[in-house]
Amino acid sequence: MKILVINGPNLNYLGRRKTEVYGTTTLKEINDRLAHETSKFGLKIESFQSNHEGKIIDMIYQAKESAGEDKTIGIIINPGALTHYSYALRDALEAVEIPAVEVHLSRIHAREGFRRRSVTAPVCIGQISGFGADSYLLGLRALIQHLRIPESSRR
Amino acid sequence: MKILVINGPNLNYLGRRKTEVYGTTTLKEINDRLAHETSKFGLKIESFQSNHEGKIIDMIYQAKESAGEDKTIGIIINPGALTHYSYALRDALEAVEIPAVEVHLSRIHAREGFRRRSVTAPVCIGQISGFGADSYLLGLRALIQHLRIPESSRR
Amino acid sequence: MKILVINGPNLNYLGRRKTEVYGTTTLKEINDRLAHETSKFGLKIESFQSNHEGKIIDMIYQAKESAGEDKTIGIIINPGALTHYSYALRDALEAVEIPAVEVHLSRIHAREGFRRRSVTAPVCIGQISGFGADSYLLGLRALIQHLRIPESSRR
Amino acid sequence: MKILVINGPNLNYLGRRKTEVYGTTTLKEINDRLAHETSKFGLKIESFQSNHEGKIIDMIYQAKESAGEDKTIGIIINPGALTHYSYALRDALEAVEIPAVEVHLSRIHAREGFRRRSVTAPVCIGQISGFGADSYLLGLRALIQHLRIPESSRR
Amino acid sequence: MKILVINGPNLNYLGRRKTEVYGTTTLKEINDRLAHETSKFGLKIESFQSNHEGKIIDMIYQAKESAGEDKTIGIIINPGALTHYSYALRDALEAVEIPAVEVHLSRIHAREGFRRRSVTAPVCIGQISGFGADSYLLGLRALIQHLRIPESSRR
Amino acid sequence: MKILVINGPNLNYLGRRKTEVYGTTTLKEINDRLAHETSKFGLKIESFQSNHEGKIIDMIYQAKESAGEDKTIGIIINPGALTHYSYALRDALEAVEIPAVEVHLSRIHAREGFRRRSVTAPVCIGQISGFGADSYLLGLRALIQHLRIPESSRR
Amino acid sequence: MKILVINGPNLNYLGRRKTEVYGTTTLKEINDRLAHETSKFGLKIESFQSNHEGKIIDMIYQAKESAGEDKTIGIIINPGALTHYSYALRDALEAVEIPAVEVHLSRIHAREGFRRRSVTAPVCIGQISGFGADSYLLGLRALIQHLRIPESSRR
Amino acid sequence: MKILVINGPNLNYLGRRKTEVYGTTTLKEINDRLAHETSKFGLKIESFQSNHEGKIIDMIYQAKESAGEDKTIGIIINPGALTHYSYALRDALEAVEIPAVEVHLSRIHAREGFRRRSVTAPVCIGQISGFGADSYLLGLRALIQHLRIPESSRR
Amino acid sequence: MKILVINGPNLNYLGRRKTEVYGTTTLKEINDRLAHETSKFGLKIESFQSNHEGKIIDMIYQAKESAGEDKTIGIIINPGALTHYSYALRDALEAVEIPAVEVHLSRIHAREGFRRRSVTAPVCIGQISGFGADSYLLGLRALIQHLRIPESSRR
Amino acid sequence: MKILVINGPNLNYLGRRKTEVYGTTTLKEINDRLAHETSKFGLKIESFQSNHEGKIIDMIYQAKESAGEDKTIGIIINPGALTHYSYALRDALEAVEIPAVEVHLSRIHAREGFRRRSVTAPVCIGQISGFGADSYLLGLRALIQHLRIPESSRR
Amino acid sequence: MKILVINGPNLNYLGRRKTEVYGTTTLKEINDRLAHETSKFGLKIESFQSNHEGKIIDMIYQAKESAGEDKTIGIIINPGALTHYSYALRDALEAVEIPAVEVHLSRIHAREGFRRRSVTAPVCIGQISGFGADSYLLGLRALIQHLRIPESSRR
Amino acid sequence: MKILVINGPNLNYLGRRKTEVYGTTTLKEINDRLAHETSKFGLKIESFQSNHEGKIIDMIYQAKESAGEDKTIGIIINPGALTHYSYALRDALEAVEIPAVEVHLSRIHAREGFRRRSVTAPVCIGQISGFGADSYLLGLRALIQHLRIPESSRR
Repeated sequence: MKILVINGPNLNYLGRRKTEVYGTTTLKEINDRLAHETSKFGLKIESFQSNHEGKIIDMIYQAKESAGEDKTIGIIINPGALTHYSYALRDALEAVEIPAVEVHLSRIHAREGFRRRSVTAPVCIGQISGFGADSYLLGLRALIQHLRIPESSRR
Repeated sequence: MKILVINGPNLNYLGRRKTEVYGTTTLKEINDRLAHETSKFGLKIESFQSNHEGKIIDMIYQAKESAGEDKTIGIIINPGALTHYSYALRDALEAVEIPAVEVHLSRIHAREGFRRRSVTAPVCIGQISGFGADSYLLGLRALIQHLRIPESSRR
Repeated sequence: MKILVINGPNLNYLGRRKTEVYGTTTLKEINDRLAHETSKFGLKIESFQSNHEGKIIDMIYQAKESAGEDKTIGIIINPGALTHYSYALRDALEAVEIPAVEVHLSRIHAREGFRRRSVTAPVCIGQISGFGADSYLLGLRALIQHLRIPESSRR
Repeated sequence: MKILVINGPNLNYLGRRKTEVYGTTTLKEINDRLAHETSKFGLKIESFQSNHEGKIIDMIYQAKESAGEDKTIGIIINPGALTHYSYALRDALEAVEIPAVEVHLSRIHAREGFRRRSVTAPVCIGQISGFGADSYLLGLRALIQHLRIPESSRR
Repeated sequence: MKILVINGPNLNYLGRRKTEVYGTTTLKEINDRLAHETSKFGLKIESFQSNHEGKIIDMIYQAKESAGEDKTIGIIINPGALTHYSYALRDALEAVEIPAVEVHLSRIHAREGFRRRSVTAPVCIGQISGFGADSYLLGLRALIQHLRIPESSRR
Repeated sequence: MKILVINGPNLNYLGRRKTEVYGTTTLKEINDRLAHETSKFGLKIESFQSNHEGKIIDMIYQAKESAGEDKTIGIIINPGALTHYSYALRDALEAVEIPAVEVHLSRIHAREGFRRRSVTAPVCIGQISGFGADSYLLGLRALIQHLRIPESSRR
Repeated sequence: MKILVINGPNLNYLGRRKTEVYGTTTLKEINDRLAHETSKFGLKIESFQSNHEGKIIDMIYQAKESAGEDKTIGIIINPGALTHYSYALRDALEAVEIPAVEVHLSRIHAREGFRRRSVTAPVCIGQISGFGADSYLLGLRALIQHLRIPESSRR
Repeated sequence: MKILVINGPNLNYLGRRKTEVYGTTTLKEINDRLAHETSKFGLKIESFQSNHEGKIIDMIYQAKESAGEDKTIGIIINPGALTHYSYALRDALEAVEIPAVEVHLSRIHAREGFRRRSVTAPVCIGQISGFGADSYLLGLRALIQHLRIPESSRR
Repeated sequence: MKILVINGPNLNYLGRRKTEVYGTTTLKEINDRLAHETSKFGLKIESFQSNHEGKIIDMIYQAKESAGEDKTIGIIINPGALTHYSYALRDALEAVEIPAVEVHLSRIHAREGFRRRSVTAPVCIGQISGFGADSYLLGLRALIQHLRIPESSRR
Repeated sequence: MKILVINGPNLNYLGRRKTEVYGTTTLKEINDRLAHETSKFGLKIESFQSNHEGKIIDMIYQAKESAGEDKTIGIIINPGALTHYSYALRDALEAVEIPAVEVHLSRIHAREGFRRRSVTAPVCIGQISGFGADSYLLGLRALIQHLRIPESSRR
Repeated sequence: MKILVINGPNLNYLGRRKTEVYGTTTLKEINDRLAHETSKFGLKIESFQSNHEGKIIDMIYQAKESAGEDKTIGIIINPGALTHYSYALRDALEAVEIPAVEVHLSRIHAREGFRRRSVTAPVCIGQISGFGADSYLLGLRALIQHLRIPESSRR
Repeated sequence: MKILVINGPNLNYLGRRKTEVYGTTTLKEINDRLAHETSKFGLKIESFQSNHEGKIIDMIYQAKESAGEDKTIGIIINPGALTHYSYALRDALEAVEIPAVEVHLSRIHAREGFRRRSVTAPVCIGQISGFGADSYLLGLRALIQHLRIPESSRR
């Protein structure tokens, strides 16, 4: 079984963009840490980044269609700036009914006013913001607990 | 001559998504009904769905370039959630000056507040909402009447 | 059985008022076209116009009390400017629970800001706007389909 | 002397309309209970319902003109949906200077946003909402106490 | 030829209502002064007061149908509180295309906030407020000048 | 069994504070009248005033814990200015699920704008405002009727 | 005695500026008509135009200091665009307590949104808008009636 | 060293209040889980609940004064409804400069509008919402990672 | 006689909190300076700080009850963040009718938007902001001048 | 060295304008009191009043150019109604970087809504309002303390 | 022929005011560069700076009256802070119908919120912002191209 | 070295779309003029148009990765309707830190309200609007001056 990790616009540039806000960790490093962590629970991750709203929505429906070994049982999503206006992304997350956790690297409440509004959060099971790369790992943990995957399988 | 039917983000999943709101009819079934109906008037339909704002805009310009047998004389569009924020889609519809009818499956006035605002409706010839799959057929009828295609050709 | 067609304030003057917006078709002509159409389905229409909010509400309750041959099974309503502020009309439509379709002649989304807000639409099964007199015929069709009156009875 | 009880649009249908919100008590039953209660104080009630804003305003001025035995000394008013927009009704209540109590059957603060705004309350001596049919009886009691009609006359 | 003078809700009570704001002049006295003034120009006035939005709209259409000696060539209207919400009245005034002047007795700009908004003024040729009963006479004069009725006919 | 009467900030000063708005009755007198009235129904009242939001919330939870003779079966609450901003008080009232009636001495709709908004009313069964000290007695009566405590027990 | 006629910014250009809105009458012609009219009442006018907010305020205080033959007993003011933001002008008009009438050539309610707000009207005795040059003459008449200068002195 | 866990108004009632939203876990159980988890890192927790804004603020300053073994190195805070209006609490958190994580049990983005605004989040290092009791454990983990307390000390 | 100096939430931490905004002066030092200054006028000060809205309100009523030597004749209040939402504090200040001066250390107009709104200032005789600790001394001076305590008693 | 005292529009009329709000002290008297006070510190004042926004801005730049004996070291400014909209004045005060104190005679927070907004305060070192003529003297004192001019030079 | 260059309030101080925002170039230097550039096209410039809204409006009308050699064929205007509120300046620019280009030195979109709104831009042919002194030269070039003055005349 | 010219949605249709607003120049012609102009400075341009937000963002990151001869040193961007809502595009422009100039063909300030808001302008060095195709050439010039590429290299 699989956790889908979705990164929206501009996250390809993580580690080099506004490092005073987003830190120097790259998406690659985050994915490695996530993969390491999920493996402890007998899960795989699939990581996906796109600057295209449409491709992200397509991917969410592909996840819904996935089956067998590849079955996607949860989503960790950092929608980037799509958070603030993409009702289309919101509708997609709501449609597939796969549990999703919204994560943000930065303290969205302490920045420009427009960053405080999330149109996607109301259809996610929870939201985590402000802890840099750790937001993803906390999101993973939250998702696994939500899915009641036994921690006891951990060694 | 041809009617272009455009379906925006998430409509690929129609029939399975929030069926209490959108019903169980699929896009395929809607297209079949539309094709059946248009054939009575000696017209073809071309049906197109995409989760990509950009592809929808591209398609609108292709329709404008169409000629001869394939000439697009009208558009039925359900922009999905793009209805609420895509000024780019609005500009495209306005630019090509092909008569367009905006349709919605659900009662957009009786749902979340953001669904009441349409940025695309002001450049369409009319808007039909709330009748489920019938909204499309009503939209087709409205378009044909607008174009003054003789009903008498019907048998 | 009967369809009630309600026209609100100022629609008495249709055909002579702001013809560049509302066209030159009169209410009489619309009613004739509606009667012609309903007769195909073995239904009658009752058409009613008033500039009085109170009389329109009274009429809606009379429709509710109607029985036998005169039983009102659906409403087509163009509330005119009452659309934008008559919560009393809204409450009446909601109270009687007769399926109603809201129709508008003009493109309400492309005119003054106040015309974009409908306080009655949330209690109607759907809304059709922008197709001139055809909006009524489309509304009738939508209503008949909603009521599942067989088209096959048509000759 | 007399208490005027005014019921605005749609209250004719009380007991049958949205009973989960408004209950099954009818206006007739409310009036009977009010009449029973007022008689204890040597007062009559006159009960009036209309779906017409204009008729309600006319009635308020008639009450002002009343004299002798029929003199109206207080008003209990449930303006129905006129509560939310009828500045004309507000002006009438303010003009005649007969003490009026505004009553509502339902919990207006816990429903749609528009129901929270009352344009008539600022010219009433008080407002009571949420207690179903009891709201009227509480309103009557409030009015009688405001008018300092002796409870001692009760037997 | 005729000038129609329309007074909206609550103006029946003029001279007795909130006299510190509206003064003690009655509608009868205003009408007499207006009649006296119009007679100098060889015109008649027809004065009409109603608390019913619907009746006022009906009257405006009757004025449009008037002909010969009774032809209505202008309207002076004090819509009372309808000023602030009656889009139906606005549509009627706009539809008939008879020049209308909006008048108010009180200084609407120096009172409650809601009184500053007029939904009818945009379809009138002008607005006069604050001069008590004189507002009507000034409105009459403005209308006559707009219609270019010769003052020279005065003796 | 017991009715809890809660008075929020500044009500300790009732009878001396802004008497043109709040009247000269003291809280002691109100409590005596309430006690007199409740005794007729075989109930006790417990009266509590505090200027501390926290103490009021604590008291609401104590009421929930009460049992036996002291069991609190209803709440009459005048939250004072907390009405306008204390979401914490709102949450407390909602949490304990003891029926509560919100009362106000003054006409909150006819005063400063901020007084028109109640954040606590949506979780109360009803709201009574404007009748001075009588608002409490009306609230008590409303509560007793809501709880269906027999008036017949009255002597 | 004297009436002061104040014209604010851009009115120097009247007759040449946006003539479809403001007409072709010049300020000189308006002043001549006003002078002709005031002379009938034994009054003089002093006409003043400036594009400077400060000079207009200075002039209002000079008018206050005027005495004897030159005593200013009333003001007719068209503040031009200062209407919409000059609280300083408002304060000046309020300070001197000379009755002032605000006039506008155009229908301010039927133009850009910002033109509907007047910050000066609340301190004037009335406002007249929409009658072109006649707005000034109507304003003069309103002022004279307000001051109760006998029309009988007219010949 | 110590982590301070602060719970605001109404959280004393957790497990019994609106369980469909907040779940059935009690505060005691949450604290036990937190204590178990912190002990793995050689830390203690101090848990504190109050319905008093003032006591919470006092406690934050006490934490600042703490030293030696009791030194508070981080705060986990669920401000309850204070989240939405307590600028005083915000100032306290900002003043002491102890890293704080804001946690919420429920999905604040998917509930009433007022719950979406946090006045305290801008001064916290991050915010976690929607995961029920797990929100606290995720918050603890986030805090420990922020403080760079070695996980390696874990056995 | 006595001046009461009230300091709201977080002012206990003055001198250590955000010193770039609030400076390094402590509350103790401010109180000493105030005491020194008041003694020149034969007055005492009583200084009070609390993080509890309720305690501050209690204290204001105690001040009202004070008599003889301890009679409180004026209040200097820095409500801290309560300035921005505590309508309860506002009501208390208004109720007791002791002249109060609102002071702020920082330039509230040049900081976050929410700090510009004061709900307490409308019931104070004046407001002083931006001068650090000097704001209190200026407030004291303003109060003494308001109370017309002779400076001549100074040596 | 010199303190510049700037008074904006309408302050020329102080002592005669709305005396119930602004008191009867004249600007001359205020200036004399200020001159008396500044002389104690070995400073001069230059007092300036204008109804012209432009002249006030010019004067601020002249102050900047002043040198030697006439060097302006501080500004006391009562911008009058310019407070509420003159961004040009704000820019001037910010540009010259001479410390300025904004003073108001009246309680701006307890008057019309528009008076609560100051566009100039954010560029001043502080603001004092509500103490009548004393506001200026308090402002002077605040300025002198800000500039750290020794009080010890006082005799 | 001539280009008029208008600089509004505070631009006299350019080069010394907030140099981190506006740079160190002076108005003199900008004018020299503009003169140099215009001379290449056989044009003169007239440069004008004022802190007075009224003088700027006067100057715009003088430009309109200019003729022969001095005829003004275009305007480059930096209205300074008047940009944000001077509807009077807007009306002047609109009235004279001389093509005008609005220029700003700084990035108005990246500063305080109020600087984003331009009331003058809607009546200019275009707007250029953010390029420091180069904004003027770009504005000149834009104006010359708009006027179709041949670049070929350049040597 | 290279300048990247980005054209957003619908600009493919330039020259044929709403020509009364956008003119008849095509994108090809604009690109030719830009290429001609840049060649004078020894620079190349790369021109790119897309209706896809995602592709534009991808292209911006490609530009960042470019090196050597192809190194992109500046961006000219007309985001089309993305200007008004694409926070994702804004984040991309901000992330790469290549100087960008925002250009618009039309007078965005004189059209529909939504066109006045730019979410991308705050991260560009400047904005040029209203000059048709010339806006691009002015933008190029602005960019070159910003980059201090010597004009002297021009022949």
